[in-house]
Amino acid sequence: MELSARNQLNGKITNVEIGAVMASIKLEVTEPGIITAMITKESAEKLGLTEGDDVTAIIKSTEVIIGK
Amino acid sequence: MELSARNQLNGKITNVEIGAVMASIKLEVTEPGIITAMITKESAEKLGLTEGDDVTAIIKSTEVIIGK
Amino acid sequence: MELSARNQLNGKITNVEIGAVMASIKLEVTEPGIITAMITKESAEKLGLTEGDDVTAIIKSTEVIIGK
Amino acid sequence: MELSARNQLNGKITNVEIGAVMASIKLEVTEPGIITAMITKESAEKLGLTEGDDVTAIIKSTEVIIGK
Amino acid sequence: MELSARNQLNGKITNVEIGAVMASIKLEVTEPGIITAMITKESAEKLGLTEGDDVTAIIKSTEVIIGK
Amino acid sequence: MELSARNQLNGKITNVEIGAVMASIKLEVTEPGIITAMITKESAEKLGLTEGDDVTAIIKSTEVIIGK
Repeated sequence: MELSARNQLNGKITNVEIGAVMASIKLEVTEPGIITAMITKESAEKLGLTEGDDVTAIIKSTEVIIGK
Repeated sequence: MELSARNQLNGKITNVEIGAVMASIKLEVTEPGIITAMITKESAEKLGLTEGDDVTAIIKSTEVIIGK
Repeated sequence: MELSARNQLNGKITNVEIGAVMASIKLEVTEPGIITAMITKESAEKLGLTEGDDVTAIIKSTEVIIGK
Repeated sequence: MELSARNQLNGKITNVEIGAVMASIKLEVTEPGIITAMITKESAEKLGLTEGDDVTAIIKSTEVIIGK
Repeated sequence: MELSARNQLNGKITNVEIGAVMASIKLEVTEPGIITAMITKESAEKLGLTEGDDVTAIIKSTEVIIGK
Repeated sequence: MELSARNQLNGKITNVEIGAVMASIKLEVTEPGIITAMITKESAEKLGLTEGDDVTAIIKSTEVIIGK
């Protein structure tokens, strides 16, 4: 099955912590590649985003799905 | 300001495409580091996730915030 | 109150598990209906999505709101 | 690849609409199955969620990933 | 229908902009109230979050559902 | 660092509850400002959203990032 989610970062699990109903998984990214972010046109313009800019991709940990 | 979002991947923008009200930003990750995924305990157990496993972090592009 | 969220699947709760600060709720969908997915134009074209295709809607459990 | 996302609803695409940078995909669920929702313990208690309750799973369309 | 989503901020729409398949809605919050954030225990501890702290709740616009 | 996330509501923490791997943070919004919601064009039209409408912004607590 191919996924519509374009951001698929390969890595190795370094830590697993099991909670009551949630679990925390940490992985070290070994082959990063390209990240796509869909943001508002307004934000892209306010931040003045252009090719070559150094930026940070910020992702809340509850949004990450693990594939194995 | 420090953020609670643990996943902060540094990169360089390689493409900006402005749509009607949304914009697509692509960045090449240059310093990946560690990704934290909060998933259900049930999924962690069903996938049998353990340290050393090779896995993929899957993130929908609408979930990514850009910091500059 | 009418919601902008188009995906509203009716079902019956089959399991409730209370954790420390989170809870897991399972429901069996009894009247499914239509699911709308907003994805990138790029993904729609790469996957070649067209009417009649058999596909899977994948939704992380932390994204689901319960209405009662 | 097996995914940690437990909610995988099978269906058939009924409509594809391509926008400037986003696309809208509609699918009719043909094999619904079970939906898991991770909510706060506080909400589960305030709504008094128990097995057998008739509820609605509400999911914003930007949260849905398509697998094909 | 009562919702499990605890964050329900009342306001008045100040701007509507319709795009190709997405729309941008701006509202001015008139009765704010309390916001609940579920974050990792790790982040809460690393940020040293305690009662009385001045903080900012950051929410991506694609995560907001409108009820009318 | 400036963020693409337009919704940044300032407040004061009123409650912190630490769970097994997740934590619940409550903050009282003291300076609300403007909330931006990106929804489908279809929903905006079905709800008939126009300037001056009284609406509710609904946000699941797992979507909120804390900045301090």
